Amino acid sequence: MNPNCTQKLQKMSLWPSNIHLQDYSEPNESWSPEMRQLYDQYIALCEVRTDGGEVKTGPWQKLPSYNRTLKHGIVAAQRPKTIDPRARLFTRNVEEKGAAFEYVVFMNDQERRCVCVFQSGHLLEGPPGYVHAGAVATMFSTVTTTLSMLFGRVLTANLNLNFRSPVPLGSVSLIHSAVDKVEGRKIFVTCRMTSIDESKLYTDATALFLSGKLGHVFGTKSV
Amino acid sequence: MNPNCTQKLQKMSLWPSNIHLQDYSEPNESWSPEMRQLYDQYIALCEVRTDGGEVKTGPWQKLPSYNRTLKHGIVAAQRPKTIDPRARLFTRNVEEKGAAFEYVVFMNDQERRCVCVFQSGHLLEGPPGYVHAGAVATMFSTVTTTLSMLFGRVLTANLNLNFRSPVPLGSVSLIHSAVDKVEGRKIFVTCRMTSIDESKLYTDATALFLSGKLGHVFGTKSV
Repeated sequence: MNPNCTQKLQKMSLWPSNIHLQDYSEPNESWSPEMRQLYDQYIALCEVRTDGGEVKTGPWQKLPSYNRTLKHGIVAAQRPKTIDPRARLFTRNVEEKGAAFEYVVFMNDQERRCVCVFQSGHLLEGPPGYVHAGAVATMFSTVTTTLSMLFGRVLTANLNLNFRSPVPLGSVSLIHSAVDKVEGRKIFVTCRMTSIDESKLYTDATALFLSGKLGHVFGTKSV
Repeated sequence: MNPNCTQKLQKMSLWPSNIHLQDYSEPNESWSPEMRQLYDQYIALCEVRTDGGEVKTGPWQKLPSYNRTLKHGIVAAQRPKTIDPRARLFTRNVEEKGAAFEYVVFMNDQERRCVCVFQSGHLLEGPPGYVHAGAVATMFSTVTTTLSMLFGRVLTANLNLNFRSPVPLGSVSLIHSAVDKVEGRKIFVTCRMTSIDESKLYTDATALFLSGKLGHVFGTKSV
């Protein structure tokens, strides 16, 4: 991971740095060959070898993904009373591998864009045999929020989704997202979900985020 | 349930009529007093007593809610090959009561509107202590789709959400939705999520659905 991105993630982190958390975006046995191939393809872009044989960080970084958003392992007395210790991140709330959201996000800091490789599990059904529009919306929310967090902590203000074609349940898809523009606290993001060869557009969307002065939401007055 | 609504739901049903399914929108021990009170309030509107003491169906009907979308109990040979028998409806995929989406939808056929009482569980977290924007979007998708199904089977074309204020995790909220207009195959729907006293607006949205000729999606050529 390049130092710039690492620094930003550490700044955003709400966990004590000595806590080890499971990274849910690592490959597991539920991943299809297509999912694994795309993962490997982007992982290869995370490190580049110079002419002199030196290994350097590449243009992409794989982001870790946990199933809690706050203060895992903090003793009850220090935890804000409003926080339920059983709380789990919505997209990582099912322990059975492959049953719900399998995904990994790769970030390209310089180009202010990211890509997510997403495999839908059998618990995400909407119309028979297809992914629920709410589950599609959830992935858009997740990917666009992750991208906009390059600018600090954010809240979603708007998410406008055009569902072009239903997503087959169990399939792998690509979600590309890019920062369109930034105006003061407003971050405008675009996003699209396609088949893995990008020939079929499933859904596209725009999202608007507000950054800054969100300590009242995140339980940290200083941020 | 009034006969008109029942007829429409039966027409839409993809299950054999002799299969008994658990109705996940019935009250359970995880429901807070507020949730139960709102449920009772709308249930009371489902039946009205005439001056002569006769009990008649009222303006509202409680809709049942299952955890499968297709052909539960159908033998494998009859099930479309594309359908995973483990598939579960996204909003009903967690068996632990109160952990994820607890909700019940009441429909007002004549006024082409519905209301959903929604209690968020600890597995729906986004920002610490608040519901994930994707989970909010999922409830909007669910409620607006349910309403638009008054016009037959539908697919979501657009969902445009304005997130006004984050929803506290574990809270109960109301989701009101109404048909705005119908133009050919297009059904335009509005929707808003508020606190139970309706003083605080959490999110509002518009949705567009397409009805008709969706047999290729629903696995039934005749519909």
